[in-house]
Amino acid sequence: MAFAHKHILSTQPLSREDIELILSTAESFKQVNQRDIKKVPTLRGKTIINLFYENSTRTRTSFEIAGKRMSADTINISASGSSVTKGETLEDTAKNIEAMNADIIVIRHAASGAPDYLAKRLSHASVINAGDGAHEHPSQALLDLMTIREHKGRLDGLTVAIIGDIARSRVARSNLYALKTMGATVRLAGPATLLPLGLEQLGAEVYTDINEAIRDADVIMMLRIQLEREGGNKLIPTLREYAQFFALNPQNLKLAKPDAIVMHPGPLNRGVEISSYVADGNQNVILQQVENGVAVRMALLYLLAGGSEAAQ
Amino acid sequence: MAFAHKHILSTQPLSREDIELILSTAESFKQVNQRDIKKVPTLRGKTIINLFYENSTRTRTSFEIAGKRMSADTINISASGSSVTKGETLEDTAKNIEAMNADIIVIRHAASGAPDYLAKRLSHASVINAGDGAHEHPSQALLDLMTIREHKGRLDGLTVAIIGDIARSRVARSNLYALKTMGATVRLAGPATLLPLGLEQLGAEVYTDINEAIRDADVIMMLRIQLEREGGNKLIPTLREYAQFFALNPQNLKLAKPDAIVMHPGPLNRGVEISSYVADGNQNVILQQVENGVAVRMALLYLLAGGSEAAQ
Amino acid sequence: MAFAHKHILSTQPLSREDIELILSTAESFKQVNQRDIKKVPTLRGKTIINLFYENSTRTRTSFEIAGKRMSADTINISASGSSVTKGETLEDTAKNIEAMNADIIVIRHAASGAPDYLAKRLSHASVINAGDGAHEHPSQALLDLMTIREHKGRLDGLTVAIIGDIARSRVARSNLYALKTMGATVRLAGPATLLPLGLEQLGAEVYTDINEAIRDADVIMMLRIQLEREGGNKLIPTLREYAQFFALNPQNLKLAKPDAIVMHPGPLNRGVEISSYVADGNQNVILQQVENGVAVRMALLYLLAGGSEAAQ
Repeated sequence: MAFAHKHILSTQPLSREDIELILSTAESFKQVNQRDIKKVPTLRGKTIINLFYENSTRTRTSFEIAGKRMSADTINISASGSSVTKGETLEDTAKNIEAMNADIIVIRHAASGAPDYLAKRLSHASVINAGDGAHEHPSQALLDLMTIREHKGRLDGLTVAIIGDIARSRVARSNLYALKTMGATVRLAGPATLLPLGLEQLGAEVYTDINEAIRDADVIMMLRIQLEREGGNKLIPTLREYAQFFALNPQNLKLAKPDAIVMHPGPLNRGVEISSYVADGNQNVILQQVENGVAVRMALLYLLAGGSEAAQ
Repeated sequence: MAFAHKHILSTQPLSREDIELILSTAESFKQVNQRDIKKVPTLRGKTIINLFYENSTRTRTSFEIAGKRMSADTINISASGSSVTKGETLEDTAKNIEAMNADIIVIRHAASGAPDYLAKRLSHASVINAGDGAHEHPSQALLDLMTIREHKGRLDGLTVAIIGDIARSRVARSNLYALKTMGATVRLAGPATLLPLGLEQLGAEVYTDINEAIRDADVIMMLRIQLEREGGNKLIPTLREYAQFFALNPQNLKLAKPDAIVMHPGPLNRGVEISSYVADGNQNVILQQVENGVAVRMALLYLLAGGSEAAQ
Repeated sequence: MAFAHKHILSTQPLSREDIELILSTAESFKQVNQRDIKKVPTLRGKTIINLFYENSTRTRTSFEIAGKRMSADTINISASGSSVTKGETLEDTAKNIEAMNADIIVIRHAASGAPDYLAKRLSHASVINAGDGAHEHPSQALLDLMTIREHKGRLDGLTVAIIGDIARSRVARSNLYALKTMGATVRLAGPATLLPLGLEQLGAEVYTDINEAIRDADVIMMLRIQLEREGGNKLIPTLREYAQFFALNPQNLKLAKPDAIVMHPGPLNRGVEISSYVADGNQNVILQQVENGVAVRMALLYLLAGGSEAAQ
């Protein structure tokens, strides 16, 4: 089956078939990654640019490893070393990169919508949104879906509780769209100040009591409190209070199904949104998420570069 | 034809034959870059170090892509992460890099003459000047020549107007030498404070009125106002005044030949030295310059590494 | 012979046979490096992560070149661009990297013991200590031994004087262990404030007079005064006084054997711990140390990745 998208900007436009193609392609790449020689020539001669306007070790490294395992030329550009400080517009920077015959530009940006803006203005390069402000982070959602499906065998009919700073979470938003498309029930929970209006219209169930959100869930996805984004506009009274009412701990975890899995996009704030006991407990699948991240990113790069069936 | 130079420090020592060899080699690499698989094994097993003491996204990325497309091992060293902060001399840093069996050191440095200084002291590595202070930027000039020749079919007999902060422009200097060698007429224009003495002795025509410089030109090359270099010693009264008298805009562009091309080394200060209308207009070749930059850098790396005829 | 170690954290657990295997493997890689095409497919499909919490151009570049020459996928993570600033623990960061199917993690960290700590907690990746606080720097010691053996034909029975800030030198400690294992006599010399207790128990001879330490030595290894580590707790009165009493200069060098070699791990503080005359003199082997560094790191990566005999 051919992949119909030129860019990966959001999970919203992805159909059930798109997501299934991405996940099955990722599964075949995961087998590559687990081999002793983790290298395939799939993207040899392709140029991938990681254009990161925000620091993100894990996402940048994951994309870089993904590109290199498929033999692409992978180049990192970080904001601190970039022309941005010389007053160049984002559009000019991106068009310059494209003019160097880049095939795929992976962009992380603090401004919601920056990847969409570029995708509309570039002429041939594909754009992957690696996180834009509080908007979307589609590769994260797709690796989450892959991890859930590995553990549960399906996505349809599952109940997934996503808990934390919903208002500012690109992870929550991208997961909501993708999980709904795949037939899951999505519960969003957090303090009222961190729950935007309109979530029900997007198909979510909304909770301000974490216990209700967790009860009988198949999957519990804790969001990171983004301390570095708090800025002047503090929406969380204190971390201690937040942890008291909204952290996942061994007590409230018991409310979920006995075989529920615990997820977190990382980096972890241990003792804030998740207790160390749970983060290291036998229900956590956090490191599998990281492993699947490389496989999902290989699948996305592969499909955007023209691959149309399971890889290798 | 063999290439007679061990280093690329300046365009001044390059003969007409040297420049023609570089440009024809670059043209064949440009075809590589436009292929679906943009990779050749030409520099496999060579080690190229990008030693950047100043930030420069576009030049560093261009050299990095150039090296990787030819399968060289390409390593970036930036000043912020370097031994410089530990008090090591530039010469010791470069000799250390050379001792790791580096083949080519691409250096960007704020000090005019730094690449020449190193080239004299290293024993086997080649040095490419990727911009040294207000001195030279030879790979930029060569990509400019390539772009002009693509559009005009020749360099000999053309009139090229270079406009802006001539005094502090390594781009202007390297272009002046190379264009004169190739038989072009070079006009240099800018405010009197930004025009050093002695330009006529180097073969240039000098103008303080931008309109006179543009009149009947085949090529108009706008220089970037390097805001970040202004420092305490301000030579430009205000950006608004500068833009009023020295920016390229749709009115003064009409003075040039109807088929004149508009060039800029980037990054653009839109609304300062060039109006957005002109920067995006149909006479601009700015993104072709960027594309040709990769090809010219492939050619330089290839020729310094021992290649002697058109590549692939 | 098989290599028995999963990690390289210290030179202390390395037996004479281990060290001889590493050095002979490094010697064969040195021949690779001196070829025109310095590339072997030895580590194709392996993923090496350079996780640097402290800047170190030379060590990071040396490991990066080593990995790339053996065709490994080599990824750099520096602290400034890392999740550390987002409050993630070192252990979580390392486990995340491991989860991306990294084979070898090369770590530089300001905290003594950080590499050991990680090695105990990771499940499959190998760890190489690329310098941890004032503790150890095993690859540096091994390249020093390789360089000494090249010049002297042996290590057994040699007298090696290591001079400088012994207390805070990971280089001195790693050299002491490895040189003792190989049968050399090790003299440690420096101002009394920079000589910790207990050095004799580790098998060293201790001197506060540099002349006595140098007398009849085969090898003189000057340590770098780590100006950037001085912090509030200054142990050196002034650099001028230090240089007066503890620098290696043409006069005191005459006390050593006539064919003694002069070593320095770099970066050099010329005029502080070593006079420029000596640093550039014909007894110095400083750049050979750097060259051997790449070969030793290739050997370590190769042996940890499962290689068991001389490479290529």
